[in-house]
Amino acid sequence: MDITKTKAYGATNSVFSGLSEMEIERQAPKADEVHIDILYCGVCHSDLHQVKNDWHNTIYPCVPGHEVVGRISEVGSAVIKFRVGDVVGVGCMVDSCGVCPSCQQKEENYCEGPVGWTATYNGYMKPANEDFNTFGGYSTNMTVKESFVLRIPEGLDIKAAAPILCAGVTTYSPMKHCNVGPGQHVAVVGIGGLGHMAVQIARALGATVTAITRNQDKQAAAEKLGAHEVLISTDAAAMKAHELKFDFIIITIPDAFDVNDYVTLVKRDGVLTTVGLLGPYKSAINNQEVAMHRRTISGSIIGSIAETQEVLDFCVKHHILPEVEMIPMQDINKAFDKMMDEEVRFRYVIDMASLKK
Amino acid sequence: MDITKTKAYGATNSVFSGLSEMEIERQAPKADEVHIDILYCGVCHSDLHQVKNDWHNTIYPCVPGHEVVGRISEVGSAVIKFRVGDVVGVGCMVDSCGVCPSCQQKEENYCEGPVGWTATYNGYMKPANEDFNTFGGYSTNMTVKESFVLRIPEGLDIKAAAPILCAGVTTYSPMKHCNVGPGQHVAVVGIGGLGHMAVQIARALGATVTAITRNQDKQAAAEKLGAHEVLISTDAAAMKAHELKFDFIIITIPDAFDVNDYVTLVKRDGVLTTVGLLGPYKSAINNQEVAMHRRTISGSIIGSIAETQEVLDFCVKHHILPEVEMIPMQDINKAFDKMMDEEVRFRYVIDMASLKK
Repeated sequence: MDITKTKAYGATNSVFSGLSEMEIERQAPKADEVHIDILYCGVCHSDLHQVKNDWHNTIYPCVPGHEVVGRISEVGSAVIKFRVGDVVGVGCMVDSCGVCPSCQQKEENYCEGPVGWTATYNGYMKPANEDFNTFGGYSTNMTVKESFVLRIPEGLDIKAAAPILCAGVTTYSPMKHCNVGPGQHVAVVGIGGLGHMAVQIARALGATVTAITRNQDKQAAAEKLGAHEVLISTDAAAMKAHELKFDFIIITIPDAFDVNDYVTLVKRDGVLTTVGLLGPYKSAINNQEVAMHRRTISGSIIGSIAETQEVLDFCVKHHILPEVEMIPMQDINKAFDKMMDEEVRFRYVIDMASLKK
Repeated sequence: MDITKTKAYGATNSVFSGLSEMEIERQAPKADEVHIDILYCGVCHSDLHQVKNDWHNTIYPCVPGHEVVGRISEVGSAVIKFRVGDVVGVGCMVDSCGVCPSCQQKEENYCEGPVGWTATYNGYMKPANEDFNTFGGYSTNMTVKESFVLRIPEGLDIKAAAPILCAGVTTYSPMKHCNVGPGQHVAVVGIGGLGHMAVQIARALGATVTAITRNQDKQAAAEKLGAHEVLISTDAAAMKAHELKFDFIIITIPDAFDVNDYVTLVKRDGVLTTVGLLGPYKSAINNQEVAMHRRTISGSIIGSIAETQEVLDFCVKHHILPEVEMIPMQDINKAFDKMMDEEVRFRYVIDMASLKK
């Protein structure tokens, strides 16, 4: 086969009225690629941002999905890591330039090539004569370069594993980079898809974990996930009592927020990192608060391929699993609504068998 | 003597109409204090901010000055480091709580005590029954705890040394903290009192130094100070060409500015630190730019006592000297005007003999 047609769910234009079923084309695997029969795909807040064109860069049609778990159905002639039948994952990236300093250092997620890394959906394919838009995991199958495919380790529940590929690695990567570990106080702000992974990972790394949420309803769930303490962000007195407390704060809020609300909670020489926001904060940072305690404001974007494999293995080792609610593909628009209303606990995963019927 | 009266220059109220001569009181040195006959005092941009009440915390009368060089005229009974006749310096702090983690770790400039460190002027004295306002170096003498007094090393021109005590250590401290050194590209933004020290120090630390200024007139001076390159910040094409170039950017601009103009210049994993601004940036940071290259936005405030001694010694060793213009105390208001107009090259130093006449 060279090109096959397959079913997908996507948005056709920026006047967003929900996703609908469509037919897309998939290429046959080249020598270094594998063809994957998609089993499960996580629903990330980014998917909704992208189909709604919130970042003003969406190419239509747009088929989201970058938390993909599937089974290899075909391998290219030069593939060495995988065999037909292997259960594998695809995360946020499917390619990168390969030659810039970041790629050479295996930090493909910071690719400095002309167009950066290629996103699993809404990404440009290279070379230029193949510059069509990538389609993500809200479909029955996909073709991916083997170097961007992850091994799903034995012992990981494949129905629940998908969110590790984005929510997991996005929170794991900055915590590893900043050496989060025993003796440290870590705060996780926003207890949704990313935050619920961050709480589990920070706890497994040995830190004392505070979950910060504006939503009192999430308190019990956050504690069950491993938080030593839950702080309600609208409780001004409680927030005040936590000033200068945290070595590391990871903020997973997916929309603009006032970062000054959290800066004061950071210890001297501590780090605040934002992973869920692609855009400006809601207000200007007060440098007085930053400078007076030599605090650090940083950001992080997904994680490298090596880190993605690492976090999959880490989750097995530490018995960490995303809390997921399985939905059929046809329910995606209802799921988006519930996600916006923060009703999901904590990640929807699409059972792709529903689309194949 | 218990209390002596002496001449000073200060502001009497917040309706700022310039500094004027006034009489202030100085305490006799206690057991652990020294009394200093002030020879020279640098004029820092902070002095102007403070007397104008720009930070809404000024106590009047306000006698500025925190770059003090003088000679010890009297020592308390328990003083061990200094003798009468020693040439010494006093920088931005004259006390700190001594018991918080930062003080215990000799980082007094990050004191987390109830009122933080005691500023050399406009600071609260402790204990509470002595809670008057501190008066700075725009006066003929002062009394300071010996542990906050610096030794002016031999070989340092005492007429030019004063600015090292604030401008020097304020730029040296974050560069040392971030391990600035050979092989690194450092940008210094703002070539004034702080910036002209930062260029010299970064060069002496072995970095490749780019001076960034909006003022074309400063190009030659910046090169003479040791900048390998000068970048004019209003030249959009030149700024664009420097994207992702710098390991470390130190911003010395003393008023609100748009930090996004500089964020894009930082390399992956690079650091942007602001030392000259006590307040909010002019606009909200775009986290997309921060996260996409795991950049770090930080801030730093002056430096510790140990670092202040270190930078004094470093300047002698590397033949670094502030470029100063000597003025009589009576010309301070003219000097403030010229400083605001960026006419000073690069620091005014008051010759305190003028006040003693």
